Amino acid sequence: MLMILKCKAFQISSPTLQSGLMASVTVSLNLPNFAVRFDGMSDCLLEPAGGIYMDHGSCLISSIFPSQVSRFCLKKTDLKDYALPNASWCPDMLNLYQEFLEKTKTDGWIKLPSFKSNRDHIQGLKLPSGLAVASDKSDWRIFTRCIQVEGQGYEYVIFFHPSKKKSICLFQPGPYLEGAPGFAHGGSLAAMMDETFSKTAYLAGEGLFTVSLNIRFKNLIPVGSLAVLKVDVEKIEDQKLYMSCIAQSRDQQTVYAKCSGVFLQLQLEEESFQ
Amino acid sequence: MLMILKCKAFQISSPTLQSGLMASVTVSLNLPNFAVRFDGMSDCLLEPAGGIYMDHGSCLISSIFPSQVSRFCLKKTDLKDYALPNASWCPDMLNLYQEFLEKTKTDGWIKLPSFKSNRDHIQGLKLPSGLAVASDKSDWRIFTRCIQVEGQGYEYVIFFHPSKKKSICLFQPGPYLEGAPGFAHGGSLAAMMDETFSKTAYLAGEGLFTVSLNIRFKNLIPVGSLAVLKVDVEKIEDQKLYMSCIAQSRDQQTVYAKCSGVFLQLQLEEESFQ
Repeated sequence: MLMILKCKAFQISSPTLQSGLMASVTVSLNLPNFAVRFDGMSDCLLEPAGGIYMDHGSCLISSIFPSQVSRFCLKKTDLKDYALPNASWCPDMLNLYQEFLEKTKTDGWIKLPSFKSNRDHIQGLKLPSGLAVASDKSDWRIFTRCIQVEGQGYEYVIFFHPSKKKSICLFQPGPYLEGAPGFAHGGSLAAMMDETFSKTAYLAGEGLFTVSLNIRFKNLIPVGSLAVLKVDVEKIEDQKLYMSCIAQSRDQQTVYAKCSGVFLQLQLEEESFQ
Repeated sequence: MLMILKCKAFQISSPTLQSGLMASVTVSLNLPNFAVRFDGMSDCLLEPAGGIYMDHGSCLISSIFPSQVSRFCLKKTDLKDYALPNASWCPDMLNLYQEFLEKTKTDGWIKLPSFKSNRDHIQGLKLPSGLAVASDKSDWRIFTRCIQVEGQGYEYVIFFHPSKKKSICLFQPGPYLEGAPGFAHGGSLAAMMDETFSKTAYLAGEGLFTVSLNIRFKNLIPVGSLAVLKVDVEKIEDQKLYMSCIAQSRDQQTVYAKCSGVFLQLQLEEESFQ
């Protein structure tokens, strides 16, 4: 089986075409059944020739989105989605989850599923040569789903807005994520930011690998409380995505940390068995 | 119970006295039983009036070190030390562990114990007011010891050199720390760097809280292999410790990441029950 790695440069000058989503469809993903519709100066959407279908509740899957998003939000799967409410979620987290779930019906947000391993998220795609995938007989877990007991470790859900190229992550650290007594470890927040960046970068512009993270910590997050992470894609340039993140309390009165991140774009190809 | 927070500034001009250890003893820790001995231009040691005792094997505890270190390396404790070899450690990790254990006998390195929670590491010390310690009825865990199954999560041990103000962390990520299939999540390395910085900052100069982390990722760490993190305290200024870290393969041929970190100094006081 041949593995091919392709890197892409986005060099589109029109402001309405600077979206990684647009670029990935128009420049390289070659999906002839999609028509382009411009929706204001900053948003641009893709409409399929055959109409749009939606699936509210767990994940809005729509063919208005390019292949990364529809592949990511599998319509039918037996895989467990860890980004669903459970008894450990605090009221703030539950309320905001419901609020954003409503927005998936009207405002273009999608709720991302969260499987046990990134292997599930990129099923059927080839990694670059040199990144040989180790045997999958082991019990692999994505780091931010490493703790299985509800409420003890990472509780989080990510909502993504394709045309606005932004994400919201609702994050509730459990007592296994402790640093200073009673507060989340700085490293656990760093990892949550990296993971939210990572999913956003992949879906907004095929960003796959972290190049750099710059984090400034402002306040500690009490264990068991909600931190809201807002991620924006600032620009896509020279095969890199530049993103920013602010983590704060729900009422925005307390900033926990600010972060910038750079991710490298890598276009994964469909796996073919020859 | 009254809780008092004191911040310290280190403003010692002599090059041989720029050690955080020295400063913390001579300036504020007020330990009159210690005499000062200079050992070359860059090293300075403290000798107790009553001699030195050592405990090789698990942790070299010596009264040449200031109170943070001797408190950290409890001579007698029932607490489980998670920084000891187990069957999951790869040969590279075991070999380098033995190498550094030898250095604890001759070269001034100490092996740091690693307990389940930071609550155990700062037993008997008061946190600043505002950082109320939550009830300890829960099962709290320091983030980097969150996974209990040997080899599945974080395997690591930190060696610290007080007079050189540097640390070495031997880190073997398990399959629960995955990011890209077969490789450690960038966030898991970020957290390991933050934790190694954190322990170094506390022991070298009472640094307790992460102010910032700047990480540049170079290569992915294969799950199950060894990454060696080298941490240096670059300077202590304006109540902050400035540190650097490089994570690389044992043969130093592959750099995984470079990081700089700033930590805030906070002098914790003995707890008193009134």
